Amino acid sequence: MNYPNNLKKTYQNPLTYKNRGMDLESELNESNEYYLDTNRALIYKKPTPIGVTDVRYTKQGKVIDRGYFKEPSTLDYNGLYRGKYIEFEAKVTKNRTAFPLANIHKHQIKHLEKVLEHKGIGFLIIKINEIVYLLKGSDFVEFLKENDRKSIPYSFIKEKGYMIKYGYNPILNYLDLVDQIYFEEESI
Amino acid sequence: MNYPNNLKKTYQNPLTYKNRGMDLESELNESNEYYLDTNRALIYKKPTPIGVTDVRYTKQGKVIDRGYFKEPSTLDYNGLYRGKYIEFEAKVTKNRTAFPLANIHKHQIKHLEKVLEHKGIGFLIIKINEIVYLLKGSDFVEFLKENDRKSIPYSFIKEKGYMIKYGYNPILNYLDLVDQIYFEEESI
Repeated sequence: MNYPNNLKKTYQNPLTYKNRGMDLESELNESNEYYLDTNRALIYKKPTPIGVTDVRYTKQGKVIDRGYFKEPSTLDYNGLYRGKYIEFEAKVTKNRTAFPLANIHKHQIKHLEKVLEHKGIGFLIIKINEIVYLLKGSDFVEFLKENDRKSIPYSFIKEKGYMIKYGYNPILNYLDLVDQIYFEEESI
Repeated sequence: MNYPNNLKKTYQNPLTYKNRGMDLESELNESNEYYLDTNRALIYKKPTPIGVTDVRYTKQGKVIDRGYFKEPSTLDYNGLYRGKYIEFEAKVTKNRTAFPLANIHKHQIKHLEKVLEHKGIGFLIIKINEIVYLLKGSDFVEFLKENDRKSIPYSFIKEKGYMIKYGYNPILNYLDLVDQIYFEEESI
């Protein structure tokens, strides 16, 4: 992971798998690695919180013999960009007409509201109909306040969201949109 | 975890365990929970990254049958405070004269340097001789550049560090020091 000045690593060519095979999480992880290597931003996927119930000591070190996945209370990705705190969640839906809200836990929504309150940059990345959108946290929270629906209609995402185009390096250049939305318009 | 306005939870009385029993990590976790509940900051300990090699599906959900602990490449705690990105590592040493640098991985030091470069707030919390110090990331990095030692002498920590006093709520009120160091002096 040490080639900040001398990028020897070959990132995958998106033409060979674009929209097929690689999932949104891998696409974002690769994009974040690219941002890291080019020293543009420090953004990581948080490890899934795991409860460990059994460990065993082996010659190779401590090994987990039993554990379980805990429910996350924050969003999946966070980090530092242009001096700002950034946090977001990424979700894919196969639903063609709406994004089901069951995809996001209640305490994650509360957490997102707090991130905005404390002047962090918070948003969702939603892949629907094979298109990836950035939906500002404030638009998402406003939708929830004004609606009692169990899903966000695709029309709302198309209207309010910003399309993240697939590219070469990085695959999903969402930080260009963050620049536009949060640094040029100066509105969080 | 939902009593932001109506703090029913009883935080532990530090008098009953102060400096004995409770470890630094628990003290910081409780302090961060207090900051969260009082809506002062959003700071979490990152889950230890775990590699899962075997999962099994049970009636209770997905269960891990084998896994291992990965080496962290970032610092233990991160979050959002007063619109700023904050990240730090907390370490205890039983050594009375120096803080052994083997406690912190090389890539963690690199990461800390990047946090500072990207205008985040980064520091270490070191417990040595039963006293807890906040050592600014910049002071730590400067020490490493100017010295070839395998440990930081206690005298350096006493001179450059800021003592975090034990209190009631929160147990370790390190954010008051962060206010002083990073918001009043305006120097990161």
